[in-house]
Amino acid sequence: MERKIELHESHPRYLSLLAREKLVTGFKRGLVASEGLIAHGRGECFDYLIGECTIESAKAAVNAASATLLLARYPVISINGNVTALCVDQVCQLNRSLENSAVEINLFYYTKERERLISEEFKKYGLLKIFGIDPKNLVSIPELESNRRFVDRNGISKADVVFVPLEDGDRTIALKRMNKKVITVDLNPLSRTALSSDITIVDNIVRVIPQLIECIKYHKKHSSENDLKELIEGFDNMDGLKKALEVMKSKQVPIQ
Amino acid sequence: MERKIELHESHPRYLSLLAREKLVTGFKRGLVASEGLIAHGRGECFDYLIGECTIESAKAAVNAASATLLLARYPVISINGNVTALCVDQVCQLNRSLENSAVEINLFYYTKERERLISEEFKKYGLLKIFGIDPKNLVSIPELESNRRFVDRNGISKADVVFVPLEDGDRTIALKRMNKKVITVDLNPLSRTALSSDITIVDNIVRVIPQLIECIKYHKKHSSENDLKELIEGFDNMDGLKKALEVMKSKQVPIQ
Repeated sequence: MERKIELHESHPRYLSLLAREKLVTGFKRGLVASEGLIAHGRGECFDYLIGECTIESAKAAVNAASATLLLARYPVISINGNVTALCVDQVCQLNRSLENSAVEINLFYYTKERERLISEEFKKYGLLKIFGIDPKNLVSIPELESNRRFVDRNGISKADVVFVPLEDGDRTIALKRMNKKVITVDLNPLSRTALSSDITIVDNIVRVIPQLIECIKYHKKHSSENDLKELIEGFDNMDGLKKALEVMKSKQVPIQ
Repeated sequence: MERKIELHESHPRYLSLLAREKLVTGFKRGLVASEGLIAHGRGECFDYLIGECTIESAKAAVNAASATLLLARYPVISINGNVTALCVDQVCQLNRSLENSAVEINLFYYTKERERLISEEFKKYGLLKIFGIDPKNLVSIPELESNRRFVDRNGISKADVVFVPLEDGDRTIALKRMNKKVITVDLNPLSRTALSSDITIVDNIVRVIPQLIECIKYHKKHSSENDLKELIEGFDNMDGLKKALEVMKSKQVPIQ
């Protein structure tokens, strides 16, 4: 018995179901780890709690992130399987809009095959040079005692700003220890990633990247270096996380 | 160069990542449905909000559940793919500790193959007789108009108490319509399963089952039938759900 569901735009949760379908397609194509499906499910739950829309504090974080990326000497976008499945095209567009940036593959559940597939996927969308895959260029940095992480000496290792959407806590903390400025996208305002990053955008990545691109375009046209610096100085990450949590807590569901 | 991540006990979210790994292994082995991975992700979100530990109201629910199982004439434990992947051994242990109970397979996303694999998995852990798989013994009960559900005439159909961890709302309501006493484990205190069960343990199943076994052991030794009856009478499920929700809402962003 066939139980395939046709997604229709009229479904109240169309965009969420579309993202889920993208993840599942990415999983079937070998881009996404099975653990990535679970992580996405957790994200969906938090997204539900913020109403599946971009909340005010996230808009402020996107704005600060765009300023930080524009002022960076060498910003690197760190991508994984879920990011690829959800928004490979927008990430390539973001990278083009920054001009001095680079993209690096960074897999928590690493396999050579998945790395290859992701790298090819990015090539399809016009990104010819991707960092983090040439063993000759990888340098190891300490994460926890038990764990090691590899970054590209010409990518993250050299970057002053790293944009790591959907990242693990240990890795984010490792990046902070390397004195990188870290921007992340995380729907869980209580995660260690959210708490240890400089700028945490509590929102769904599929909504974030297009807004980030728009914001960068706007600031390029209208904002001076000083404007951008002031914008960053005025941003308070903890305050944003608290506001995101408040929105989640204000969600009322009647108990019988 | 091997860059595989080894889960290490020093990772602050080790137990959660271990559970995720068990699910993924179960999925690869055909025990878990892909929908089960997403459902687990959603559970992880709620688990995060209660602090990934057993809260007070869950302890009270475990206590009431152990009393209810001990007083039952014929308690049946209803299991699915996620339960199998996460705690097949503990479920077998729980079943042994009850003496008069049985285990029945009950799959929302049913395939014959998955049923066979789950049944074999339970056999490995010493459970030789499992209900719900012999077509001759299945009786159909109405769920929703569109849906039918089958239960074993010698299992759930005959039970007075059904323990259904990680269950769908429609199915739980169907069990209630059959006048069963229903005990469930559900991390979402607002789910229809949580709201329609007699006893809802708002906690992660991997923490619940060992505590349930301990509780049963304790009551067998120390409690009279009257003690157990009083314990059950004093239990208020809605109150427990409200308290769980309060814990989730009281979650604060830690000031660093």
